[in-house]
Amino acid sequence: MGANERLVIIGADATGMSAASQARRLKPDHDLEITAFERGHFTSYSACGIPYWVGGEVTDRDALIARTPAEHRARGIDLRTRTEVTEIDLDRQCVRTRDLDDPTADERWHGFDHLVIATGARPVRPKLPGIDAEGVHGIQSLDDGQALLDALHKDHVRRAVVVGAGYIGVEMAEAFRHRDIDVTVLEASDQPMSTLDPDMGRLVHTAMNGMGIHTVTGAAATAVLTDADGRARAVTTENSEYPADVVVLGLGVRPETTLARDAGLPTGPHGGLLTDLAMRVRGQENIWAGGDCVEVLDLVSGHTRHIALGTHANKHGQVIGTNVGGGYATFPGVVGTAVSKVCDLEIARTGLLEAQAREVGLRYVTVTIESTSRAGYYPRAAPMTVKMLAEHRTGRLLGVQIVGREGAGKRVDVAAVALTAGMTVEQMISLDLGYAPPFSPAWDPILIAARKAAAAVTKEMRG
Amino acid sequence: MGANERLVIIGADATGMSAASQARRLKPDHDLEITAFERGHFTSYSACGIPYWVGGEVTDRDALIARTPAEHRARGIDLRTRTEVTEIDLDRQCVRTRDLDDPTADERWHGFDHLVIATGARPVRPKLPGIDAEGVHGIQSLDDGQALLDALHKDHVRRAVVVGAGYIGVEMAEAFRHRDIDVTVLEASDQPMSTLDPDMGRLVHTAMNGMGIHTVTGAAATAVLTDADGRARAVTTENSEYPADVVVLGLGVRPETTLARDAGLPTGPHGGLLTDLAMRVRGQENIWAGGDCVEVLDLVSGHTRHIALGTHANKHGQVIGTNVGGGYATFPGVVGTAVSKVCDLEIARTGLLEAQAREVGLRYVTVTIESTSRAGYYPRAAPMTVKMLAEHRTGRLLGVQIVGREGAGKRVDVAAVALTAGMTVEQMISLDLGYAPPFSPAWDPILIAARKAAAAVTKEMRG
Repeated sequence: MGANERLVIIGADATGMSAASQARRLKPDHDLEITAFERGHFTSYSACGIPYWVGGEVTDRDALIARTPAEHRARGIDLRTRTEVTEIDLDRQCVRTRDLDDPTADERWHGFDHLVIATGARPVRPKLPGIDAEGVHGIQSLDDGQALLDALHKDHVRRAVVVGAGYIGVEMAEAFRHRDIDVTVLEASDQPMSTLDPDMGRLVHTAMNGMGIHTVTGAAATAVLTDADGRARAVTTENSEYPADVVVLGLGVRPETTLARDAGLPTGPHGGLLTDLAMRVRGQENIWAGGDCVEVLDLVSGHTRHIALGTHANKHGQVIGTNVGGGYATFPGVVGTAVSKVCDLEIARTGLLEAQAREVGLRYVTVTIESTSRAGYYPRAAPMTVKMLAEHRTGRLLGVQIVGREGAGKRVDVAAVALTAGMTVEQMISLDLGYAPPFSPAWDPILIAARKAAAAVTKEMRG
Repeated sequence: MGANERLVIIGADATGMSAASQARRLKPDHDLEITAFERGHFTSYSACGIPYWVGGEVTDRDALIARTPAEHRARGIDLRTRTEVTEIDLDRQCVRTRDLDDPTADERWHGFDHLVIATGARPVRPKLPGIDAEGVHGIQSLDDGQALLDALHKDHVRRAVVVGAGYIGVEMAEAFRHRDIDVTVLEASDQPMSTLDPDMGRLVHTAMNGMGIHTVTGAAATAVLTDADGRARAVTTENSEYPADVVVLGLGVRPETTLARDAGLPTGPHGGLLTDLAMRVRGQENIWAGGDCVEVLDLVSGHTRHIALGTHANKHGQVIGTNVGGGYATFPGVVGTAVSKVCDLEIARTGLLEAQAREVGLRYVTVTIESTSRAGYYPRAAPMTVKMLAEHRTGRLLGVQIVGREGAGKRVDVAAVALTAGMTVEQMISLDLGYAPPFSPAWDPILIAARKAAAAVTKEMRG
């Protein structure tokens, strides 16, 4: 049976193991050998869930693991944890690996017929004085999460500083609030959540301060100060010093593509691998890539973007596994949807921000409306703000941003589907969305925004 | 200024007063006289909110009134409450009215340049022995709601029987549970919520019984038994007798089109007025109709349907008001979206049921999946069941039904937009829906269903 196809996977998280599982579903062992190499101990875990584990809302680390190495192996996948791929040789169609638990062992070469690059992303770690001190934590991996939790349990942590107010930053701020730890979030730019327009980011800023999360904007960290034992004791900015028993870095991630670039594979403007619609690396027949290490096509702007998000990673793996398994699937692209929360504040966006629209040469109108998640008279009707961008003249929906409370965030999905379908805001007015008082006002907030946006498009055309 | 245009409106609720308000926004008083005739005391109220008012979740009746007669009048609308229109004369372009508070007054004629028929719907009231007894309540109007509340406050009500397990029936069952009143729901058909397929309706049935709402199917009411004072004391079915201190009728509604039919205006197979896309009554230049008295085009089946829903009524009014005001707007149709809840059970649907698909000659595949509203490991992740119909061969989405708990219902909106856009289930797999653990599993339940439906379409094509 030496004629078996060999599928080799680098990285055994969402993309890698979704690809493996789907390929296995389509091709039995005797048709396809699947080998996955993973640097760490864990497979198929939800990195997005780490803040909730640290915050204590998820009590069991293993709950974050969708499938263990043993479970993968039981399904006929040769999974090698603690094994690092150190080189991809495209000419010879093989990868070199190293056993991280046995530094004396020789590196080995493994041939492949198909290769999946699912190397993920690495957190941004600015070169600041003291950044490597004890007490400074990333939270990219389960190991990171465990280290932070150990610190919280062992040390008397009263004050935390989170550097960066993006998704991870605000979610970690919530986690500390859950543990009754005083938290300060330092953000270099003028607003938290730079994934929103400044006006919407300001709503988040105000709400975070209202929750007792001290959020300082225009505050780029300049150093981590340490005590005599070399432990972090404060974060400094140009003007201030913020005492901290623990420091968390939430500055976002960059695609991890060192191996792939060394092998000569093409990366895009954001440092991610470039693929075709079937998730093949561009120009390659049998090299596939997906998840946090690739750039994805933004269907609204026509440009590629780097978006590290577990839901995309899962879809990429599914597409790759289907194609490697002899089926057909594509990943057409994204519209830039994201949803998050800080305590009871829900934050969502899809499509383009104002700056992103301008960047690709689009002229647009914007409207912002206030409404409620339920009929105004219904208990727990929560206020929400919806901002909508529509293209000048055509009225095509370009983007939606939402800041609100319970029931606000997932409404962004309606706009995500409308963007995918290329709908105009005029068309959106008559969308048949679910209505009953516990779920929505008679005019859903998204429809109110669409109505106002359509009027703005008309008005701008006239005048 | 005798050359003013005159807009006459019959019925001052959602459609009528949305039309009036929008027309007034576009045309000032000296260009357009607006007169609205309303049989009742109230205007622009949320009939959908009545069950929550009866249940005590909404404490103030006036909270259900979006705009009072006085507020409408202050905006230059001549609103005449307690005034019934008794005839429409199309030849002479006028309507005849009667003052309900002064039976001795003569009827009067009022000419119009535009007429809006917004006569709404009337509840189905079967001709059963005892149906008109004291203690038998409809809940169509605020007056109905008030009468029921008065009865609940005045009498010692321990047991209620709700006849009919559609939207109103199940919402009233919830209302009684909120008031700790024992409630039995009698449903003539084999399942509650005949707006769902039988398999999904059974999930609702089980859940309702689990909530202590005694739900009896195959139980057509045959009579209301009364006591010596002529008060309702029980409802009978062919085989049983259900004691009741209060009886509520929740058998749905029919379009109220007597006036319009007497004037020779066209109605459709469900008894509703037929309109064009601008909401003009078919064949008429200046007669408009909308809301619960019209049939709407079902964009999925291509047939008209009667759907009494406040959200459609509001849109119809907006479209009519825009067109009468000299603008341009259309109501393209619906996809049949509805969402409801019974206590913490959320029920939603959009598109076609199996029976509806068969009725219009569609061949389809169905899939049913179980998932959760949030990531499985996140607190309060609630189970939900999604059923999806897709067309044979084309894979076009035909319908979605959801039964679940908190966070399940409004997910139907994604399918509603996809239906409107004519998406295939294959296309839906890559929809960029908002993901974070508190909001969704990495694969949103709708996407899991789409994936399974796409596989089912492929499988059926092969074999």
